[in-house]
Amino acid sequence: MAKNVIVGQSGGPTAVINSSLAGVFKTAKDLGADKVYGMRHGIQGFLEKKIVDMSEKIRTDLDLELLKRTPSAFLGSCRYKLPEINDNKELYDKIFEILNEYEITAFFYIGGNDSMDTIKKLSDYAIVINSPIRFMGVPKTIDNDLAVTDHTPGFGSAAKYIASVTKEVIRDGLVYDIKNVTVIEIMGRNAGWLTGAAALAKCEDCEGVDMIYLPELPFDVDSFVEKVGALLEKKNSVVVAVSEGIKTAEGEYVFELTNHTEYVDSFGHKQLSGTARYLATLVSEKFGCKSRTVELSTLQRCAGHLTSRVDITEAYQVGGSAVKAAFAGDTGKMVILKRDSDDPYICTTDLYDVHKIANIEKKVPMEWITEDGTNVTQDFVNYTRPLIQAELTPIMITGQPRHIVVDMN
Amino acid sequence: MAKNVIVGQSGGPTAVINSSLAGVFKTAKDLGADKVYGMRHGIQGFLEKKIVDMSEKIRTDLDLELLKRTPSAFLGSCRYKLPEINDNKELYDKIFEILNEYEITAFFYIGGNDSMDTIKKLSDYAIVINSPIRFMGVPKTIDNDLAVTDHTPGFGSAAKYIASVTKEVIRDGLVYDIKNVTVIEIMGRNAGWLTGAAALAKCEDCEGVDMIYLPELPFDVDSFVEKVGALLEKKNSVVVAVSEGIKTAEGEYVFELTNHTEYVDSFGHKQLSGTARYLATLVSEKFGCKSRTVELSTLQRCAGHLTSRVDITEAYQVGGSAVKAAFAGDTGKMVILKRDSDDPYICTTDLYDVHKIANIEKKVPMEWITEDGTNVTQDFVNYTRPLIQAELTPIMITGQPRHIVVDMN
Repeated sequence: MAKNVIVGQSGGPTAVINSSLAGVFKTAKDLGADKVYGMRHGIQGFLEKKIVDMSEKIRTDLDLELLKRTPSAFLGSCRYKLPEINDNKELYDKIFEILNEYEITAFFYIGGNDSMDTIKKLSDYAIVINSPIRFMGVPKTIDNDLAVTDHTPGFGSAAKYIASVTKEVIRDGLVYDIKNVTVIEIMGRNAGWLTGAAALAKCEDCEGVDMIYLPELPFDVDSFVEKVGALLEKKNSVVVAVSEGIKTAEGEYVFELTNHTEYVDSFGHKQLSGTARYLATLVSEKFGCKSRTVELSTLQRCAGHLTSRVDITEAYQVGGSAVKAAFAGDTGKMVILKRDSDDPYICTTDLYDVHKIANIEKKVPMEWITEDGTNVTQDFVNYTRPLIQAELTPIMITGQPRHIVVDMN
Repeated sequence: MAKNVIVGQSGGPTAVINSSLAGVFKTAKDLGADKVYGMRHGIQGFLEKKIVDMSEKIRTDLDLELLKRTPSAFLGSCRYKLPEINDNKELYDKIFEILNEYEITAFFYIGGNDSMDTIKKLSDYAIVINSPIRFMGVPKTIDNDLAVTDHTPGFGSAAKYIASVTKEVIRDGLVYDIKNVTVIEIMGRNAGWLTGAAALAKCEDCEGVDMIYLPELPFDVDSFVEKVGALLEKKNSVVVAVSEGIKTAEGEYVFELTNHTEYVDSFGHKQLSGTARYLATLVSEKFGCKSRTVELSTLQRCAGHLTSRVDITEAYQVGGSAVKAAFAGDTGKMVILKRDSDDPYICTTDLYDVHKIANIEKKVPMEWITEDGTNVTQDFVNYTRPLIQAELTPIMITGQPRHIVVDMN
């Protein structure tokens, strides 16, 4: 029987998710896999047998380098949650039928919380039907909200992007000699890791943002307005970073305070946005000053033009470690990152039972949020700064970052 | 009498406005200026004698390199329009009094349309009072809407940023196997140069945006919705670039079709935003598909982390040329860029009477917009592409672009 493996990508894209794909592909080839298949659009495409031979797409070392530097899931992604095993055994049988048809010995899934749920269920079902196929999770999410692992690949580059553009926005806010307030809206539904990364803008040449509001704490609109007012008395340009997911003590999203249409994805997550706009308008009305909003939106998860080399390297490593582990007999596990020290930054990979990771959200610990709830502590900064270090410059062709693509649509 | 010069920055910042400042400073020093003064926040700060000695701020070659790569006006900027000479001669007398106090022989103003109006009025008044002081304009604006000059420094870097992130957003839109529409909102109140730059995203590895709507033509909401619908029948992911300033045939801004608070700056320009959000919501409601908006907002004018080397070099050159011309006796002129050819790209500097430039907006010519009004032509692309070529990488310190600042606030 052939020793084939298959890999898929799931959930929201990141700037380095393809570096993990490159790590899986290269390591599997190096360890003697016959074919490395890729599923288009994750398990959803897999069920429709949308399966490609990665070797036909990645032919040269240059292709592999381009893959590492191409943002957004190369194979396409999905938000598809497998049903409980007992609710639809037919579906699981179909999956294993396809896996056997392609003579798959190991299945790798690059994703976050929801994706680890897929690995959990498939590895469980393999036990039920006594299948030798191994299932390994490769962590990925800009949100950094996966349990057990020190951090997730994708977070470092998003944090670097956020820190760098926040620095630029702060500079831009200082340009006029007038009172002005900028509210930067940052991703992170329930976990404030990305919003906290705005704190990294503070360095020798930048005073940093004035306040940071994470979704871990209830948001008080009146207190926010009051604090902005106090800042405006001391300085011209006030810059505040807010999570898209901040809620009032009553549990209402801040963006819901305005009248905004909402979109709910297939995991039941609400599409959030409008938080910054609501707050900026409020401040303008209250203080009569200029205000503006900067929504980092999609840009923060697809900025392949500004990635962290630490992040892109670790993304590659967790992909490779997953393959090594599967080939050594592991299944039902996710690769985790274990940090030995901040400075010098030392971090290695390890394995962990996916059952203890799937569907759990890791939030910013309360002790890393300042007492007044408007900033993160130095511990947060010390934790995050190593992850944004160094660059892997895009390969620039005629003035733009070059990507590698499966097909044009 | 000392041979001192003074330089100021005015209007909206760009990623390369400080490269022009570096060009003015270095060339003035090289040509024997005693002191190069900088006015904080343009003519507005000048009137309050907020004047600094540039040599105290720029001490080393490294400082000069950092200055070139620092986005947003180093000296601060203003939006201050001088009154007509006959309306307030006292103000003009005050200005010349200060100039004489500092023994200024030449005055350089880096800015756009409104700033050239300042140069025009001051050089006119110099003639009225027979002052030997020379006044030179240095072009700057991401909007590329200055008359006579082939293009303006600042446009190339903003265009490069727009083209690159648009490419990333297009990739991000392809990640899920579902119908989705992305509307990217781009700056440019009346001139569509920046919005048109989204066309540059199209290259070997990217199919480009589907439609581009410039403010030069009236925008028809129904036709837009219909075209998006037709595109959604053919493909999953539709990406449209719109100018913030598009208006209906009745002259109403598209963002005004929703209920949005507006801000009017001191030049009477409305603060635009909300156009993309309005259109994205409309499309979602009509077709029941996912939609999202990406507002490039401030990011497109302060992205020092992704600049064009062609642009940053030309910004430096126009600064230097202004100084050379003033020292050779010119006044009341703006430095212009003259293009000899697109490929190879050859461009030189020249001088032009500022009276024929100030307060005139150069729009995208009608023959560079496709007949159906939803894209720009190949001529537009051939014109713009040379301006985004090559990079001047930021000096990265602990994972972030390093800037040089006058003071922290």
